[in-house]
Amino acid sequence: MSDKPRSHGRLSISASLVPRDLMEERPRLRGAWTARIVTLFPEAFPGVLGLSLMGKALDQGLWALETIDLRPFGEGKHRNVDDTPAGGGAGMVLRADVVGAALDQASTGTPRDPARWPVIYLSPRGRPFTQEMARRFSQAEGLTLLCGRFEGVDERVLQEYGVEEVSLGDFVLSGGEIAAQALIDATVRLIPRVLGNQASTEEESFSDGLLEHPQYTRPAVWKGRAIPDILLSGHHANIADWRRDMAERLTKERRPDLWRAYCAQHGRDPDGDQEL
Amino acid sequence: MSDKPRSHGRLSISASLVPRDLMEERPRLRGAWTARIVTLFPEAFPGVLGLSLMGKALDQGLWALETIDLRPFGEGKHRNVDDTPAGGGAGMVLRADVVGAALDQASTGTPRDPARWPVIYLSPRGRPFTQEMARRFSQAEGLTLLCGRFEGVDERVLQEYGVEEVSLGDFVLSGGEIAAQALIDATVRLIPRVLGNQASTEEESFSDGLLEHPQYTRPAVWKGRAIPDILLSGHHANIADWRRDMAERLTKERRPDLWRAYCAQHGRDPDGDQEL
Repeated sequence: MSDKPRSHGRLSISASLVPRDLMEERPRLRGAWTARIVTLFPEAFPGVLGLSLMGKALDQGLWALETIDLRPFGEGKHRNVDDTPAGGGAGMVLRADVVGAALDQASTGTPRDPARWPVIYLSPRGRPFTQEMARRFSQAEGLTLLCGRFEGVDERVLQEYGVEEVSLGDFVLSGGEIAAQALIDATVRLIPRVLGNQASTEEESFSDGLLEHPQYTRPAVWKGRAIPDILLSGHHANIADWRRDMAERLTKERRPDLWRAYCAQHGRDPDGDQEL
Repeated sequence: MSDKPRSHGRLSISASLVPRDLMEERPRLRGAWTARIVTLFPEAFPGVLGLSLMGKALDQGLWALETIDLRPFGEGKHRNVDDTPAGGGAGMVLRADVVGAALDQASTGTPRDPARWPVIYLSPRGRPFTQEMARRFSQAEGLTLLCGRFEGVDERVLQEYGVEEVSLGDFVLSGGEIAAQALIDATVRLIPRVLGNQASTEEESFSDGLLEHPQYTRPAVWKGRAIPDILLSGHHANIADWRRDMAERLTKERRPDLWRAYCAQHGRDPDGDQEL
Protein backbone atom coordinates (compact mmCIF):
# COMPACT_ATOMS: atom_id res chain seq x y z
CA MET A 1 0.00 0.00 0.00
CA SER A 2 1.34 3.39 -1.02
CA ASP A 3 1.77 6.11 1.59
CA LYS A 4 1.29 9.10 -0.64
CA PRO A 5 -2.23 10.17 -1.50
CA ARG A 6 -3.18 9.51 -5.08
CA SER A 7 -5.51 11.73 -7.00
CA HIS A 8 -6.11 11.24 -10.66
CA GLY A 9 -9.16 12.28 -12.58
CA ARG A 10 -12.40 11.67 -10.72
CA LEU A 11 -10.84 9.23 -8.34
CA SER A 12 -9.77 10.32 -4.91
CA ILE A 13 -8.68 8.68 -1.71
CA SER A 14 -10.85 9.51 1.26
CA ALA A 15 -9.69 9.14 4.85
CA SER A 16 -11.16 6.21 6.70
CA LEU A 17 -13.19 6.81 9.84
CA VAL A 18 -13.53 3.15 10.69
CA PRO A 19 -11.12 0.71 12.33
CA ARG A 20 -11.01 -1.69 9.42
CA ASP A 21 -11.64 -0.15 6.06
CA LEU A 22 -11.87 -2.51 3.14
CA MET A 23 -11.44 0.40 0.82
CA GLU A 24 -7.97 1.23 2.05
CA GLU A 25 -6.27 -0.12 -1.04
CA ARG A 26 -8.99 0.83 -3.42
CA PRO A 27 -9.68 4.05 -5.24
CA ARG A 28 -13.03 5.57 -4.49
CA LEU A 29 -15.29 7.65 -6.64
CA ARG A 30 -16.32 10.78 -4.84
CA GLY A 31 -19.81 10.20 -3.45
CA ALA A 32 -19.77 6.50 -4.28
CA TRP A 33 -22.61 4.53 -2.68
CA THR A 34 -21.28 3.07 0.56
CA ALA A 35 -22.30 0.18 2.79
CA ARG A 36 -21.15 0.42 6.42
CA ILE A 37 -21.46 -2.84 8.22
CA VAL A 38 -21.46 -3.30 11.99
CA THR A 39 -20.54 -6.92 12.62
CA LEU A 40 -18.73 -9.33 14.93
CA PHE A 41 -17.28 -10.92 11.79
CA PRO A 42 -15.64 -8.22 9.66
CA GLU A 43 -13.62 -10.98 7.99
CA ALA A 44 -16.85 -12.17 6.35
CA PHE A 45 -16.64 -9.16 4.02
CA PRO A 46 -16.44 -8.56 1.13
CA GLY A 47 -16.88 -12.34 0.69
CA VAL A 48 -18.93 -13.09 -2.40
CA LEU A 49 -19.27 -9.32 -2.96
CA GLY A 50 -15.56 -9.22 -3.84
CA LEU A 51 -16.07 -11.53 -6.84
CA SER A 52 -17.30 -11.11 -10.40
CA LEU A 53 -18.82 -7.84 -11.61
CA MET A 54 -19.70 -6.71 -8.09
CA GLY A 55 -16.07 -7.15 -7.01
CA LYS A 56 -14.76 -5.35 -10.11
CA ALA A 57 -17.07 -2.43 -9.39
CA LEU A 58 -15.81 -2.42 -5.78
CA ASP A 59 -12.21 -2.37 -7.01
CA GLN A 60 -13.06 0.47 -9.37
CA GLY A 61 -14.58 2.50 -6.55
CA LEU A 62 -18.09 2.48 -8.05
CA TRP A 63 -19.30 1.51 -4.59
CA ALA A 64 -17.60 1.14 -1.22
CA LEU A 65 -17.71 -1.27 1.67
CA GLU A 66 -16.62 -0.48 5.22
CA THR A 67 -16.80 -2.75 8.21
CA ILE A 68 -17.00 -1.72 11.84
CA ASP A 69 -15.99 -4.49 14.22
CA LEU A 70 -18.48 -4.63 17.08
CA ARG A 71 -16.07 -6.41 19.43
CA PRO A 72 -13.90 -3.43 20.53
CA PHE A 73 -17.08 -1.70 21.74
CA GLY A 74 -17.68 -4.56 24.19
CA GLU A 75 -17.50 -4.32 27.97
CA GLY A 76 -14.66 -5.36 30.29
CA LYS A 77 -11.60 -7.44 29.75
CA HIS A 78 -13.41 -9.89 27.48
CA ARG A 79 -15.14 -7.16 25.47
CA ASN A 80 -18.53 -8.73 26.07
CA VAL A 81 -21.10 -7.52 23.59
CA ASP A 82 -24.06 -9.52 24.85
CA ASP A 83 -25.85 -10.54 28.02
CA THR A 84 -28.71 -12.84 29.09
CA PRO A 85 -32.27 -11.84 28.11
CA ALA A 86 -34.23 -9.86 30.70
CA GLY A 87 -37.09 -12.09 31.83
CA GLY A 88 -35.14 -15.27 31.07
CA GLY A 89 -34.97 -17.53 28.05
CA ALA A 90 -32.39 -19.15 25.82
CA GLY A 91 -29.56 -17.39 24.04
CA MET A 92 -27.94 -14.02 24.47
CA VAL A 93 -28.98 -10.49 23.50
CA LEU A 94 -26.68 -7.80 22.05
CA ARG A 95 -26.41 -4.92 24.54
CA ALA A 96 -27.96 -1.55 23.69
CA ASP A 97 -24.98 0.43 25.01
CA VAL A 98 -22.45 -1.61 23.01
CA VAL A 99 -24.41 -1.55 19.76
CA GLY A 100 -25.27 2.12 20.33
CA ALA A 101 -21.59 3.07 20.55
CA ALA A 102 -20.87 1.21 17.30
CA LEU A 103 -23.81 2.90 15.56
CA ASP A 104 -22.53 6.27 16.79
CA GLN A 105 -19.25 5.57 15.09
CA ALA A 106 -21.00 4.32 11.95
CA SER A 107 -22.97 7.56 11.72
CA THR A 108 -19.83 9.70 11.48
CA GLY A 109 -20.09 11.84 8.38
CA THR A 110 -23.39 10.33 7.21
CA PRO A 111 -26.65 12.25 6.68
CA ARG A 112 -29.24 11.88 9.48
CA ASP A 113 -32.13 11.66 7.01
CA PRO A 114 -33.06 7.95 6.76
CA ALA A 115 -34.08 8.48 3.12
CA ARG A 116 -30.51 9.51 2.34
CA TRP A 117 -28.82 7.00 4.65
CA PRO A 118 -30.99 4.19 6.07
CA VAL A 119 -29.82 2.35 9.18
CA ILE A 120 -30.92 -1.25 8.89
CA TYR A 121 -31.05 -4.19 11.26
CA LEU A 122 -31.28 -7.53 9.50
CA SER A 123 -33.74 -9.66 11.39
CA PRO A 124 -36.51 -12.15 10.65
CA ARG A 125 -38.80 -9.75 12.54
CA GLY A 126 -38.37 -7.07 9.89
CA ARG A 127 -40.37 -6.23 6.81
CA PRO A 128 -39.50 -8.55 3.92
CA PHE A 129 -36.74 -7.32 1.63
CA THR A 130 -38.02 -6.74 -1.91
CA GLN A 131 -36.73 -5.51 -5.24
CA GLU A 132 -38.56 -2.25 -4.58
CA MET A 133 -36.63 -1.85 -1.32
CA ALA A 134 -33.37 -2.57 -3.16
CA ARG A 135 -34.27 0.17 -5.62
CA ARG A 136 -34.95 2.60 -2.76
CA PHE A 137 -31.66 1.74 -1.04
CA SER A 138 -29.75 2.10 -4.31
CA GLN A 139 -31.02 5.68 -4.56
CA ALA A 140 -29.69 6.57 -1.10
CA GLU A 141 -26.09 7.74 -0.59
CA GLY A 142 -25.34 4.59 1.33
CA LEU A 143 -26.57 2.67 4.31
CA THR A 144 -25.51 1.22 7.64
CA LEU A 145 -26.23 -2.44 8.28
CA LEU A 146 -26.26 -3.95 11.75
CA CYS A 147 -25.62 -7.69 11.62
CA GLY A 148 -27.10 -9.55 14.57
CA ARG A 149 -25.99 -12.78 16.14
CA PHE A 150 -27.46 -14.74 19.05
CA GLU A 151 -31.09 -14.14 20.06
CA GLY A 152 -31.20 -10.58 18.79
CA VAL A 153 -30.49 -7.05 19.90
CA ASP A 154 -31.85 -4.99 22.78
CA GLU A 155 -35.07 -3.39 21.50
CA ARG A 156 -34.12 0.02 22.92
CA VAL A 157 -31.23 0.53 20.53
CA LEU A 158 -33.56 -0.06 17.57
CA GLN A 159 -35.95 2.59 18.92
CA GLU A 160 -33.25 5.10 19.90
CA TYR A 161 -31.59 5.04 16.48
CA GLY A 162 -34.75 4.72 14.38
CA VAL A 163 -33.42 1.50 12.93
CA GLU A 164 -35.35 -0.03 10.03
CA GLU A 165 -35.80 -3.78 10.53
CA VAL A 166 -35.51 -5.74 7.30
CA SER A 167 -35.98 -9.46 6.86
CA LEU A 168 -34.46 -11.50 4.08
CA GLY A 169 -37.35 -13.95 4.29
CA ASP A 170 -39.29 -16.29 6.54
CA PHE A 171 -36.34 -18.30 7.73
CA VAL A 172 -33.75 -17.95 10.48
CA LEU A 173 -30.05 -17.43 9.83
CA SER A 174 -27.31 -17.83 12.41
CA GLY A 175 -26.29 -14.21 11.86
CA GLY A 176 -26.94 -11.16 9.75
CA GLU A 177 -23.78 -11.34 7.64
CA ILE A 178 -25.18 -13.44 4.77
CA ALA A 179 -28.37 -11.38 4.78
CA ALA A 180 -26.25 -8.21 4.61
CA GLN A 181 -24.42 -9.56 1.58
CA ALA A 182 -27.69 -10.42 -0.14
CA LEU A 183 -29.12 -6.97 0.56
CA ILE A 184 -25.96 -5.25 -0.68
CA ASP A 185 -25.72 -7.42 -3.80
CA ALA A 186 -29.35 -6.79 -4.81
CA THR A 187 -28.91 -3.06 -4.14
CA VAL A 188 -25.48 -2.43 -5.67
CA ARG A 189 -26.31 -4.14 -8.95
CA LEU A 190 -28.95 -1.47 -9.52
CA ILE A 191 -26.36 1.31 -9.28
CA PRO A 192 -25.56 2.61 -12.79
CA ARG A 193 -22.41 1.18 -14.39
CA VAL A 194 -21.99 -1.66 -11.85
CA LEU A 195 -23.48 -4.20 -14.24
CA GLY A 196 -22.23 -3.98 -17.78
CA ASN A 197 -25.61 -4.48 -19.36
CA GLN A 198 -28.26 -2.22 -17.84
CA ALA A 199 -30.94 -3.72 -20.09
CA SER A 200 -30.90 -6.99 -18.26
CA THR A 201 -32.02 -5.47 -14.96
CA GLU A 202 -35.17 -4.25 -16.69
CA GLU A 203 -36.24 -7.55 -18.22
CA GLU A 204 -35.73 -9.75 -15.20
CA SER A 205 -38.07 -11.11 -12.58
CA PHE A 206 -40.17 -8.65 -10.54
CA SER A 207 -39.37 -5.61 -12.65
CA ASP A 208 -42.87 -5.95 -14.18
CA GLY A 209 -44.45 -7.90 -11.31
CA LEU A 210 -44.09 -11.29 -13.01
CA LEU A 211 -41.60 -14.14 -12.68
CA GLU A 212 -39.26 -14.40 -15.63
CA HIS A 213 -40.18 -16.55 -18.65
CA PRO A 214 -38.15 -19.72 -19.36
CA GLN A 215 -34.83 -19.28 -21.13
CA TYR A 216 -33.18 -21.47 -23.78
CA THR A 217 -29.90 -21.41 -25.63
CA ARG A 218 -27.86 -23.67 -27.90
CA PRO A 219 -27.87 -26.62 -28.59
CA ALA A 220 -31.23 -26.58 -30.43
CA VAL A 221 -31.91 -30.17 -29.32
CA TRP A 222 -30.52 -31.67 -26.11
CA LYS A 223 -31.40 -35.11 -24.74
CA GLY A 224 -34.37 -35.18 -27.13
CA ARG A 225 -35.63 -31.83 -25.83
CA ALA A 226 -35.96 -29.07 -28.46
CA ILE A 227 -36.02 -25.31 -28.02
CA PRO A 228 -39.66 -24.19 -28.61
CA ASP A 229 -40.09 -23.44 -32.36
CA ILE A 230 -41.43 -19.96 -31.76
CA LEU A 231 -38.12 -18.83 -30.22
CA LEU A 232 -36.32 -19.81 -33.43
CA SER A 233 -38.95 -18.18 -35.71
CA GLY A 234 -37.47 -14.69 -35.79
CA HIS A 235 -40.95 -13.15 -35.25
CA HIS A 236 -40.11 -10.73 -32.48
CA ALA A 237 -43.70 -9.78 -31.64
CA ASN A 238 -44.74 -13.43 -31.37
CA ILE A 239 -41.73 -14.18 -29.22
CA ALA A 240 -42.59 -11.30 -26.90
CA ASP A 241 -46.19 -12.54 -26.65
CA TRP A 242 -45.07 -16.09 -25.94
CA ARG A 243 -42.68 -14.93 -23.24
CA ARG A 244 -45.33 -12.83 -21.55
CA ASP A 245 -47.76 -15.73 -21.68
CA MET A 246 -45.19 -18.07 -20.14
CA ALA A 247 -44.28 -15.51 -17.47
CA GLU A 248 -47.96 -15.14 -16.58
CA ARG A 249 -48.55 -18.91 -16.43
CA LEU A 250 -45.51 -19.43 -14.26
CA THR A 251 -46.45 -16.61 -11.89
CA LYS A 252 -50.04 -17.87 -11.62
CA GLU A 253 -48.85 -21.40 -10.86
CA ARG A 254 -45.98 -20.66 -8.47
CA ARG A 255 -46.85 -17.35 -6.89
CA PRO A 256 -50.59 -16.79 -6.54
CA ASP A 257 -49.74 -13.78 -4.33
CA LEU A 258 -47.77 -12.01 -7.08
CA TRP A 259 -50.36 -13.07 -9.65
CA ARG A 260 -53.23 -11.46 -7.73
CA ALA A 261 -51.23 -8.23 -7.33
CA TYR A 262 -50.38 -8.22 -11.06
CA CYS A 263 -54.01 -8.78 -12.06
CA ALA A 264 -55.22 -6.02 -9.74
CA GLN A 265 -52.72 -3.65 -11.32
CA HIS A 266 -53.65 -4.60 -14.90
CA GLY A 267 -57.43 -4.89 -14.45
CA ARG A 268 -57.38 -8.63 -15.10
CA ASP A 269 -59.47 -11.41 -13.58
CA PRO A 270 -56.98 -13.60 -11.64
CA ASP A 271 -59.17 -16.67 -12.22
CA GLY A 272 -59.93 -15.93 -15.87
CA ASP A 273 -58.25 -17.52 -18.87
CA GLN A 274 -55.05 -15.91 -19.92
CA GLU A 275 -55.00 -13.76 -22.99
CA LEU A 276 -52.79 -14.93 -25.79
CA MET B 1 -2.09 -31.29 5.34
CA SER B 2 -1.27 -34.78 6.52
CA ASP B 3 -0.92 -37.57 3.97
CA LYS B 4 -1.89 -40.47 6.16
CA PRO B 5 -5.57 -41.21 6.67
CA ARG B 6 -6.79 -40.43 10.15
CA SER B 7 -9.46 -42.48 11.81
CA HIS B 8 -10.40 -41.94 15.40
CA GLY B 9 -13.68 -42.75 17.05
CA ARG B 10 -16.66 -41.99 14.84
CA LEU B 11 -14.71 -39.80 12.50
CA SER B 12 -13.55 -41.09 9.17
CA ILE B 13 -12.05 -39.69 6.00
CA SER B 14 -14.12 -40.25 2.89
CA ALA B 15 -12.69 -40.08 -0.60
CA SER B 16 -13.64 -37.00 -2.56
CA LEU B 17 -15.53 -37.34 -5.82
CA VAL B 18 -15.31 -33.70 -6.68
CA PRO B 19 -12.51 -31.64 -8.22
CA ARG B 20 -12.25 -29.22 -5.34
CA ASP B 21 -13.29 -30.65 -2.04
CA LEU B 22 -13.42 -28.23 0.84
CA MET B 23 -13.49 -31.16 3.21
CA GLU B 24 -10.06 -32.38 2.24
CA GLU B 25 -8.44 -31.19 5.42
CA ARG B 26 -11.41 -31.84 7.62
CA PRO B 27 -12.58 -34.98 9.36
CA ARG B 28 -16.05 -36.06 8.43
CA LEU B 29 -18.69 -37.85 10.39
CA ARG B 30 -19.99 -40.85 8.50
CA GLY B 31 -23.26 -39.84 6.90
CA ALA B 32 -22.80 -36.16 7.75
CA TRP B 33 -25.26 -33.87 5.99
CA THR B 34 -23.56 -32.59 2.83
CA ALA B 35 -24.07 -29.60 0.55
CA ARG B 36 -22.73 -30.02 -3.00
CA ILE B 37 -22.53 -26.74 -4.82
CA VAL B 38 -22.22 -26.30 -8.58
CA THR B 39 -20.82 -22.83 -9.12
CA LEU B 40 -18.59 -20.67 -11.29
CA PHE B 41 -17.16 -19.25 -8.05
CA PRO B 42 -16.02 -22.13 -5.85
CA GLU B 43 -13.77 -19.64 -4.01
CA ALA B 44 -16.94 -18.04 -2.60
CA PHE B 45 -17.25 -21.04 -0.28
CA PRO B 46 -17.30 -21.64 2.63
CA GLY B 47 -17.31 -17.84 3.04
CA VAL B 48 -19.42 -16.83 6.02
CA LEU B 49 -20.27 -20.52 6.54
CA GLY B 50 -16.68 -21.09 7.66
CA LEU B 51 -17.07 -18.71 10.62
CA SER B 52 -18.57 -18.97 14.08
CA LEU B 53 -20.56 -22.02 15.21
CA MET B 54 -21.35 -23.03 11.62
CA GLY B 55 -17.64 -23.05 10.79
CA LYS B 56 -16.76 -24.98 13.95
CA ALA B 57 -19.36 -27.61 13.08
CA LEU B 58 -17.88 -27.79 9.55
CA ASP B 59 -14.40 -28.27 11.02
CA GLN B 60 -15.74 -30.98 13.31
CA GLY B 61 -17.31 -32.83 10.39
CA LEU B 62 -20.89 -32.36 11.64
CA TRP B 63 -21.73 -31.26 8.12
CA ALA B 64 -19.79 -31.12 4.86
CA LEU B 65 -19.42 -28.73 1.98
CA GLU B 66 -18.22 -29.68 -1.51
CA THR B 67 -17.93 -27.40 -4.50
CA ILE B 68 -18.02 -28.41 -8.15
CA ASP B 69 -16.52 -25.81 -10.43
CA LEU B 70 -18.79 -25.36 -13.45
CA ARG B 71 -16.03 -23.90 -15.62
CA PRO B 72 -14.19 -27.14 -16.61
CA PHE B 73 -17.47 -28.46 -18.04
CA GLY B 74 -17.56 -25.55 -20.49
CA GLU B 75 -17.16 -25.85 -24.26
CA GLY B 76 -14.11 -25.15 -26.39
CA LYS B 77 -10.82 -23.49 -25.67
CA HIS B 78 -12.44 -20.81 -23.50
CA ARG B 79 -14.62 -23.29 -21.61
CA ASN B 80 -17.75 -21.32 -22.43
CA VAL B 81 -20.60 -22.20 -20.12
CA ASP B 82 -23.20 -19.85 -21.56
CA ASP B 83 -24.66 -18.62 -24.83
CA THR B 84 -27.13 -16.01 -26.07
CA PRO B 85 -30.83 -16.56 -25.34
CA ALA B 86 -32.87 -18.27 -28.07
CA GLY B 87 -35.34 -15.70 -29.37
CA GLY B 88 -33.10 -12.78 -28.47
CA GLY B 89 -32.80 -10.57 -25.43
CA ALA B 90 -30.19 -9.28 -23.04
CA GLY B 91 -27.72 -11.36 -21.08
CA MET B 92 -26.52 -14.92 -21.40
CA VAL B 93 -28.04 -18.28 -20.54
CA LEU B 94 -26.21 -21.22 -18.95
CA ARG B 95 -26.14 -24.13 -21.43
CA ALA B 96 -28.13 -27.27 -20.68
CA ASP B 97 -25.35 -29.60 -21.81
CA VAL B 98 -22.71 -27.88 -19.65
CA VAL B 99 -24.87 -27.69 -16.53
CA GLY B 100 -26.14 -31.23 -17.16
CA ALA B 101 -22.61 -32.63 -17.15
CA ALA B 102 -21.86 -30.86 -13.86
CA LEU B 103 -25.08 -32.16 -12.31
CA ASP B 104 -24.17 -35.67 -13.47
CA GLN B 105 -20.95 -35.39 -11.57
CA ALA B 106 -22.71 -33.91 -8.54
CA SER B 107 -25.08 -36.88 -8.45
CA THR B 108 -22.25 -39.40 -8.02
CA GLY B 109 -22.96 -41.47 -4.94
CA THR B 110 -26.11 -39.57 -3.98
CA PRO B 111 -29.61 -41.06 -3.66
CA ARG B 112 -31.96 -40.39 -6.61
CA ASP B 113 -34.95 -39.82 -4.33
CA PRO B 114 -35.43 -36.01 -4.13
CA ALA B 115 -36.75 -36.41 -0.56
CA ARG B 116 -33.38 -37.87 0.44
CA TRP B 117 -31.25 -35.58 -1.74
CA PRO B 118 -32.96 -32.55 -3.31
CA VAL B 119 -31.38 -30.87 -6.33
CA ILE B 120 -32.03 -27.15 -6.09
CA TYR B 121 -31.66 -24.22 -8.44
CA LEU B 122 -31.59 -20.87 -6.70
CA SER B 123 -33.65 -18.47 -8.75
CA PRO B 124 -36.13 -15.66 -8.17
CA ARG B 125 -38.58 -17.77 -10.21
CA GLY B 126 -38.65 -20.46 -7.54
CA ARG B 127 -40.94 -21.03 -4.60
CA PRO B 128 -39.96 -18.85 -1.65
CA PHE B 129 -37.53 -20.38 0.80
CA THR B 130 -39.09 -20.80 4.25
CA GLN B 131 -38.17 -22.16 7.66
CA GLU B 132 -40.35 -25.19 6.88
CA MET B 133 -38.28 -25.83 3.74
CA ALA B 134 -35.07 -25.50 5.79
CA ARG B 135 -36.47 -28.11 8.18
CA ARG B 136 -37.26 -30.46 5.27
CA PHE B 137 -33.78 -29.99 3.76
CA SER B 138 -32.13 -30.59 7.17
CA GLN B 139 -33.85 -33.97 7.31
CA ALA B 140 -32.42 -35.03 3.93
CA GLU B 141 -28.98 -36.64 3.66
CA GLY B 142 -27.72 -33.61 1.80
CA LEU B 143 -28.51 -31.56 -1.26
CA THR B 144 -27.08 -30.26 -4.51
CA LEU B 145 -27.29 -26.55 -5.18
CA LEU B 146 -26.92 -25.05 -8.62
CA CYS B 147 -25.82 -21.41 -8.45
CA GLY B 148 -26.85 -19.40 -11.49
CA ARG B 149 -25.25 -16.33 -12.99
CA PHE B 150 -26.29 -14.23 -15.98
CA GLU B 151 -29.88 -14.39 -17.23
CA GLY B 152 -30.54 -17.90 -15.98
CA VAL B 153 -30.20 -21.49 -17.03
CA ASP B 154 -31.62 -23.37 -20.01
CA GLU B 155 -35.09 -24.56 -18.95
CA ARG B 156 -34.49 -28.06 -20.31
CA VAL B 157 -31.83 -28.92 -17.75
CA LEU B 158 -34.26 -28.04 -14.95
CA GLN B 159 -36.86 -30.35 -16.46
CA GLU B 160 -34.45 -33.20 -17.27
CA TYR B 161 -33.01 -33.34 -13.75
CA GLY B 162 -36.22 -32.63 -11.84
CA VAL B 163 -34.60 -29.59 -10.30
CA GLU B 164 -36.52 -27.82 -7.51
CA GLU B 165 -36.48 -24.05 -8.03
CA VAL B 166 -36.15 -22.13 -4.78
CA SER B 167 -36.17 -18.37 -4.36
CA LEU B 168 -34.59 -16.52 -1.47
CA GLY B 169 -37.14 -13.74 -1.87
CA ASP B 170 -38.63 -11.19 -4.23
CA PHE B 171 -35.37 -9.56 -5.21
CA VAL B 172 -32.69 -10.24 -7.80
CA LEU B 173 -29.12 -11.21 -6.90
CA SER B 174 -26.19 -11.15 -9.29
CA GLY B 175 -25.66 -14.88 -8.70
CA GLY B 176 -26.83 -17.82 -6.66
CA GLU B 177 -23.81 -18.01 -4.34
CA ILE B 178 -25.12 -15.75 -1.56
CA ALA B 179 -28.53 -17.40 -1.79
CA ALA B 180 -26.84 -20.81 -1.48
CA GLN B 181 -25.04 -19.67 1.66
CA ALA B 182 -28.29 -18.41 3.17
CA LEU B 183 -30.08 -21.67 2.37
CA ILE B 184 -27.25 -23.75 3.80
CA ASP B 185 -26.95 -21.61 6.95
CA ALA B 186 -30.68 -21.80 7.71
CA THR B 187 -30.66 -25.56 7.07
CA VAL B 188 -27.45 -26.60 8.81
CA ARG B 189 -28.26 -24.78 12.05
CA LEU B 190 -31.25 -27.12 12.43
CA ILE B 191 -29.01 -30.19 12.34
CA PRO B 192 -28.61 -31.55 15.88
CA ARG B 193 -25.41 -30.51 17.69
CA VAL B 194 -24.47 -27.76 15.20
CA LEU B 195 -25.79 -25.05 17.51
CA GLY B 196 -24.81 -25.40 21.13
CA ASN B 197 -28.22 -24.54 22.49
CA GLN B 198 -31.01 -26.45 20.76
CA ALA B 199 -33.66 -24.63 22.83
CA SER B 200 -33.08 -21.40 21.00
CA THR B 201 -34.16 -22.78 17.63
CA GLU B 202 -37.55 -23.61 19.13
CA GLU B 203 -38.28 -20.19 20.61
CA GLU B 204 -37.31 -18.06 17.65
CA SER B 205 -39.29 -16.42 14.90
CA PHE B 206 -41.55 -18.61 12.69
CA SER B 207 -41.26 -21.72 14.88
CA ASP B 208 -44.78 -20.95 16.16
CA GLY B 209 -45.92 -18.83 13.21
CA LEU B 210 -45.23 -15.48 14.94
CA LEU B 211 -42.41 -12.98 14.78
CA GLU B 212 -40.25 -13.00 17.88
CA HIS B 213 -41.07 -10.73 20.84
CA PRO B 214 -38.72 -7.84 21.68
CA GLN B 215 -35.61 -8.66 23.69
CA TYR B 216 -33.87 -6.67 26.41
CA THR B 217 -30.74 -7.12 28.48
CA ARG B 218 -28.59 -5.09 30.89
CA PRO B 219 -28.29 -2.19 31.59
CA ALA B 220 -31.75 -1.81 33.19
CA VAL B 221 -31.90 1.82 32.07
CA TRP B 222 -30.12 3.13 28.97
CA LYS B 223 -30.49 6.65 27.57
CA GLY B 224 -33.59 7.09 29.73
CA ARG B 225 -35.16 3.91 28.35
CA ALA B 226 -35.98 1.24 30.94
CA ILE B 227 -36.48 -2.49 30.49
CA PRO B 228 -40.26 -3.15 30.85
CA ASP B 229 -41.02 -3.85 34.56
CA ILE B 230 -42.74 -7.13 33.87
CA LEU B 231 -39.50 -8.66 32.53
CA LEU B 232 -37.81 -7.91 35.85
CA SER B 233 -40.75 -9.17 37.94
CA GLY B 234 -39.72 -12.81 38.09
CA HIS B 235 -43.32 -13.93 37.33
CA HIS B 236 -42.62 -16.45 34.62
CA ALA B 237 -46.24 -16.96 33.55
CA ASN B 238 -46.80 -13.20 33.24
CA ILE B 239 -43.57 -12.83 31.28
CA ALA B 240 -44.63 -15.61 28.89
CA ASP B 241 -48.04 -13.93 28.43
CA TRP B 242 -46.44 -10.55 27.79
CA ARG B 243 -44.05 -12.00 25.26
CA ARG B 244 -46.82 -13.79 23.39
CA ASP B 245 -48.87 -10.61 23.37
CA MET B 246 -45.94 -8.60 22.01
CA ALA B 247 -45.20 -11.27 19.38
CA GLU B 248 -48.82 -11.19 18.28
CA ARG B 249 -48.94 -7.38 18.11
CA LEU B 250 -45.72 -7.24 16.13
CA THR B 251 -46.86 -9.93 13.69
CA LYS B 252 -50.24 -8.24 13.19
CA GLU B 253 -48.57 -4.90 12.53
CA ARG B 254 -45.66 -5.98 10.33
CA ARG B 255 -46.84 -9.16 8.67
CA PRO B 256 -50.58 -9.27 8.08
CA ASP B 257 -49.99 -12.36 5.92
CA LEU B 258 -48.44 -14.35 8.78
CA TRP B 259 -51.03 -12.97 11.20
CA ARG B 260 -53.94 -14.23 9.10
CA ALA B 261 -52.35 -17.69 8.81
CA TYR B 262 -51.74 -17.77 12.58
CA CYS B 263 -55.32 -16.76 13.35
CA ALA B 264 -56.72 -19.36 10.96
CA GLN B 265 -54.63 -22.01 12.69
CA HIS B 266 -55.66 -20.95 16.20
CA GLY B 267 -59.33 -20.20 15.52
CA ARG B 268 -58.85 -16.48 16.19
CA ASP B 269 -60.49 -13.49 14.54
CA PRO B 270 -57.65 -11.62 12.77
CA ASP B 271 -59.47 -8.30 13.20
CA GLY B 272 -60.53 -8.92 16.81
CA ASP B 273 -58.87 -7.53 19.90
CA GLN B 274 -55.97 -9.48 21.14
CA GLU B 275 -56.39 -11.61 24.19
CA LEU B 276 -54.22 -10.72 27.13
